[in-house]
Amino acid sequence: MTVGVGVIGTGMIGTQHVHRLSRAVVGSSVAAVFDVASDRAAALAQEVGARAAGSWSDLVEDPQVDAVMVASPGDLHAEQVLACLAAGKPVLCEKPLATTADDALKVVEAEVAAGRRLVQVGFMRRYDAGFRDVKAAIDAGEIGEPLLAHAVHRNPSVPDTFVGEMSLTDSLVHEFDTFRWLFAQEIVATTVIAVRHSPLASHLRDPQIVLLELANGAVVDAESFVNCRYGYDVRCEVVGSTGTVALDNPRTTIVLGDGRRGEQVPPDWGVRFGQAYQDELQAWIDALAGGATVAPGASDAWDGYAAISVAETAVASFTRHGRAEVRLADKPRLYTGEGRS
Amino acid sequence: MTVGVGVIGTGMIGTQHVHRLSRAVVGSSVAAVFDVASDRAAALAQEVGARAAGSWSDLVEDPQVDAVMVASPGDLHAEQVLACLAAGKPVLCEKPLATTADDALKVVEAEVAAGRRLVQVGFMRRYDAGFRDVKAAIDAGEIGEPLLAHAVHRNPSVPDTFVGEMSLTDSLVHEFDTFRWLFAQEIVATTVIAVRHSPLASHLRDPQIVLLELANGAVVDAESFVNCRYGYDVRCEVVGSTGTVALDNPRTTIVLGDGRRGEQVPPDWGVRFGQAYQDELQAWIDALAGGATVAPGASDAWDGYAAISVAETAVASFTRHGRAEVRLADKPRLYTGEGRS
Amino acid sequence: MTVGVGVIGTGMIGTQHVHRLSRAVVGSSVAAVFDVASDRAAALAQEVGARAAGSWSDLVEDPQVDAVMVASPGDLHAEQVLACLAAGKPVLCEKPLATTADDALKVVEAEVAAGRRLVQVGFMRRYDAGFRDVKAAIDAGEIGEPLLAHAVHRNPSVPDTFVGEMSLTDSLVHEFDTFRWLFAQEIVATTVIAVRHSPLASHLRDPQIVLLELANGAVVDAESFVNCRYGYDVRCEVVGSTGTVALDNPRTTIVLGDGRRGEQVPPDWGVRFGQAYQDELQAWIDALAGGATVAPGASDAWDGYAAISVAETAVASFTRHGRAEVRLADKPRLYTGEGRS
Amino acid sequence: MTVGVGVIGTGMIGTQHVHRLSRAVVGSSVAAVFDVASDRAAALAQEVGARAAGSWSDLVEDPQVDAVMVASPGDLHAEQVLACLAAGKPVLCEKPLATTADDALKVVEAEVAAGRRLVQVGFMRRYDAGFRDVKAAIDAGEIGEPLLAHAVHRNPSVPDTFVGEMSLTDSLVHEFDTFRWLFAQEIVATTVIAVRHSPLASHLRDPQIVLLELANGAVVDAESFVNCRYGYDVRCEVVGSTGTVALDNPRTTIVLGDGRRGEQVPPDWGVRFGQAYQDELQAWIDALAGGATVAPGASDAWDGYAAISVAETAVASFTRHGRAEVRLADKPRLYTGEGRS
Repeated sequence: MTVGVGVIGTGMIGTQHVHRLSRAVVGSSVAAVFDVASDRAAALAQEVGARAAGSWSDLVEDPQVDAVMVASPGDLHAEQVLACLAAGKPVLCEKPLATTADDALKVVEAEVAAGRRLVQVGFMRRYDAGFRDVKAAIDAGEIGEPLLAHAVHRNPSVPDTFVGEMSLTDSLVHEFDTFRWLFAQEIVATTVIAVRHSPLASHLRDPQIVLLELANGAVVDAESFVNCRYGYDVRCEVVGSTGTVALDNPRTTIVLGDGRRGEQVPPDWGVRFGQAYQDELQAWIDALAGGATVAPGASDAWDGYAAISVAETAVASFTRHGRAEVRLADKPRLYTGEGRS
Repeated sequence: MTVGVGVIGTGMIGTQHVHRLSRAVVGSSVAAVFDVASDRAAALAQEVGARAAGSWSDLVEDPQVDAVMVASPGDLHAEQVLACLAAGKPVLCEKPLATTADDALKVVEAEVAAGRRLVQVGFMRRYDAGFRDVKAAIDAGEIGEPLLAHAVHRNPSVPDTFVGEMSLTDSLVHEFDTFRWLFAQEIVATTVIAVRHSPLASHLRDPQIVLLELANGAVVDAESFVNCRYGYDVRCEVVGSTGTVALDNPRTTIVLGDGRRGEQVPPDWGVRFGQAYQDELQAWIDALAGGATVAPGASDAWDGYAAISVAETAVASFTRHGRAEVRLADKPRLYTGEGRS
Repeated sequence: MTVGVGVIGTGMIGTQHVHRLSRAVVGSSVAAVFDVASDRAAALAQEVGARAAGSWSDLVEDPQVDAVMVASPGDLHAEQVLACLAAGKPVLCEKPLATTADDALKVVEAEVAAGRRLVQVGFMRRYDAGFRDVKAAIDAGEIGEPLLAHAVHRNPSVPDTFVGEMSLTDSLVHEFDTFRWLFAQEIVATTVIAVRHSPLASHLRDPQIVLLELANGAVVDAESFVNCRYGYDVRCEVVGSTGTVALDNPRTTIVLGDGRRGEQVPPDWGVRFGQAYQDELQAWIDALAGGATVAPGASDAWDGYAAISVAETAVASFTRHGRAEVRLADKPRLYTGEGRS
Repeated sequence: MTVGVGVIGTGMIGTQHVHRLSRAVVGSSVAAVFDVASDRAAALAQEVGARAAGSWSDLVEDPQVDAVMVASPGDLHAEQVLACLAAGKPVLCEKPLATTADDALKVVEAEVAAGRRLVQVGFMRRYDAGFRDVKAAIDAGEIGEPLLAHAVHRNPSVPDTFVGEMSLTDSLVHEFDTFRWLFAQEIVATTVIAVRHSPLASHLRDPQIVLLELANGAVVDAESFVNCRYGYDVRCEVVGSTGTVALDNPRTTIVLGDGRRGEQVPPDWGVRFGQAYQDELQAWIDALAGGATVAPGASDAWDGYAAISVAETAVASFTRHGRAEVRLADKPRLYTGEGRS
């Protein structure tokens, strides 16, 4: 059985997902594609043998579409995901689930009303071999009790459309999901620390340090630097009571030359996390083919709601130059161990 | 279009390939399976929805079988590959292509007679990200002119069926293919150096050092150690006139604990090269789906013939305690740049 | 010419210094030793051919004593250093210069009144090869403009006498000096972040994260963990506008075994910084032998005052659970480029 | 008590030793200096307050000279060391002890006749922290039974005076001493493997691989590359029955920039082994001050004789394109555990 996927949004990541779902993932095909840039959508649809839908709601309703991938601009996500829920179709929504915590909460509430989880959120790091090994080391007790973590998230540069709060809502939002997941704890407060701006992009407030406080008292300091110039560099160290586990960049080769011993730093997130995206989609399709609606271990609607809530809190923390507390709704049983069937 | 593959041999690696071709590779299905252990073959066939063939020749002739994977014991490879050639079907043969250079040469000659390449040999390292990066660094001139290389190939342990010359024909044969490929040069002579035996497996002549001389004067020293105990450890350093490029084990995490900073060494070849096998099969199926018969960059029949010739020479070198020269037939135009269309 | 040094205090570090000055440093001898534990002092004096002084003021006045090393308990430092200044003798004072900023300021004022610098403070990291390379990389512009830094300072364990605020005044005080020096900027504010306590030493508030704000807006997050169990681990990464430079533990060997590739973590600060102490003392003696009173590049009285001021601020920050600003006196010309002759 | 040292030879290394012995080593002074370049010797003598001797034999006889450092050209070493023995003075001779095994044996025989060891040979690696850690790991059984080793010894370039056999007698001679010491075994045979020459210095036979066979059957493959361009790179891995221990270049900092994560490779042997030279001289002076004549763990006359015997054998092996056996005299009791008092 092949899962027919409808893909909303054919920007860079949407196009990549269309190619993955039609060529690289086993068990899926792209049934329909939609984008307001209708020419681009039509060309892509033709390339992979899919239908170019006339509207995103048309795509959601299409009986050939068994499941939906949402890769549209972030401010459309919540509405589109809600439509999928209304149609009873599984949906993998690129992060963020919504651009406000309120909207994300509506998704959660709709799922709870429907009584089953249909929504998966595209935090692909949960499928990265390195992050999974960090998680496994923690869960196996290799570092004792986890107490704190240090994280860096650096991009070589960002496009002109990248503005201030996006370093929190678009970039560090990955860390918000990552450390909730690694520590299995909610983030309860954030503090954004102003840092001297890089002179190479002084219009951005860049870099920044964000402190995350977790429910059990653990703390994470996370650096965001979207203009570090030298490469795409995501690393962290989780510190436990008897040891630590650190994620470094993958290493393939070591070059000796010109007086230096060097390993390559990934040039961009596509290189660094390409395999994680692939594995994320495969896990989703495998889950759907097996009768489930969300892949095991994936971020779900609650995770997406929590992550955007933290991001919103971080923006508030930045605005008022101080610590801000995350206010989450009560967690429905649907998302706890008991409720997840 | 889906490529229907017939798989001969359902031992450990054959079973893995059946699972990959039916579940993990895009564009393939397993049409038929054969093994003299007919119960095991029947069970596996049923599991993946394939036919259990009555004999391997029956499988080769099966019209549902578009291409054949040979994963039987090595001494059957040549005969089965020749049957595929007679049937005009592409074949991916696990290494070795044959257990003698003479038999491998028959495959080469049959292909030359048929006028086209149909045979690919399963040296999966050519699809490993690390080895490909080493190759790319050399080809890009990053180390100047390549002059020599050091290699180690260590297994934690081997089964009782592993006997003396298998360290050369079964283990180091990977290095024979690897360095022919990295240097783009034939190996012209080998010398096996006796080394003090490990007391933990004194019935084996283990470890060993083998010197490989390449046609242009470059030299490789390769250590084989099939009983190193601590892990599966494949590394090399290629030394050029202005720098070097080294392959180290992949790194995901770094653990600090008990007074040490540690990275994990792969426990076995399945962990280390699982992705390379997957990528090898995908490249083969993609090539077949695209109308080709051998994947670009893969080892072909000539490479398989050369590798077993070097292994045979190394065994002779061991036996007579000295240097032995590799005697290859003239290379047919089918396998040179001009002849490969 | 040999510099005769009088050493006040023969605890662990004082005894080490006596041995270094009498055996390992070129150009120095130990002229006199004092400790309230007079038997221990007498035995040590005899061992190295020095006089056992009857009191520390007697030692300071001793005409055989050309210069004084203060290695007594911290709360005696300021008074003893002031006595050295009154006697016109160069003094190397172990950190801290004083246990309060007020007392340290008195030392600064006394030096200013005397019109020349005689005081050096024992922040030995400024003589560590690794930290010097970090400093050199920054000063050479290798990372562009330095913007922030991450630091960890971990001890395997601490004695029972180690109480709460000592993680700031005794351990992280090294970071306070280090980052003032690396960034060539004063620290203007500190925030101590409470972290979940390690269950293995729950009577300590351990680990902690301390934020340091520098005068130019750069920020440092520094982890203190005095009970990390696995080793002595001091590392940092300074992040600049075009690159970063990181200090990792020294590496001598790499051991492969038991499935892991491992480097040793230093077991304690003696192993990690023994050479730095040696080089610090040698630089001091060389400076004295050459007619100077403070070694080039060393921490001076101002640095000692600034470091304890930051520590005091950090303690206040901890107490009131918030950010606290460092209040420094105006920097006298004696300690600026112009004033340092 | 200060040890007065006479230094013969004021070339690069001799001048460095004069500076070390007069400034950096505790307990020594330079009493006299000699060089046929008498102006250079006179200037250096004046700089350190030593006498400029009129001849090297005059220096050896000088009553102010307690011990002699021989740093003259290698072909003078044996004669000068023999004169020191005749005078009953301890002597630290830079490697090689002699330029022929026969001459080195004369030194051994003279020592045996005198009945005590006075000669130390300047193989400074035995005082390098990294090599000592490798030795300690082996001796502690961390890798099981040592079976083989891989070594590289690379220089960025060599002067025009460096000719063919010097890669064996001048460069790899360090490895000959190193692996005799690490394995505690004599080297019994050598084979020099011709390798494709680097086009950047095609007048040299460079690089080369030399195989060393040890008495217990262990084997070492050692690469010599005196023209590698990118830095000074000395590394090795000793492989045991249960694990391995490797020496890598020292690491102080890690720089991230320009897409790479890099550590510096030492630019030359002075940077890499400066501390080892310092520690070697200090150990020698400490031994002399303590009444001994050779530092514990240092290379002695037998080690110097064995190393040059291996070098001579390696040259023979190169000349006749094959394996050559090392022929050592019987080892006198003076150099065995029992004989060394």
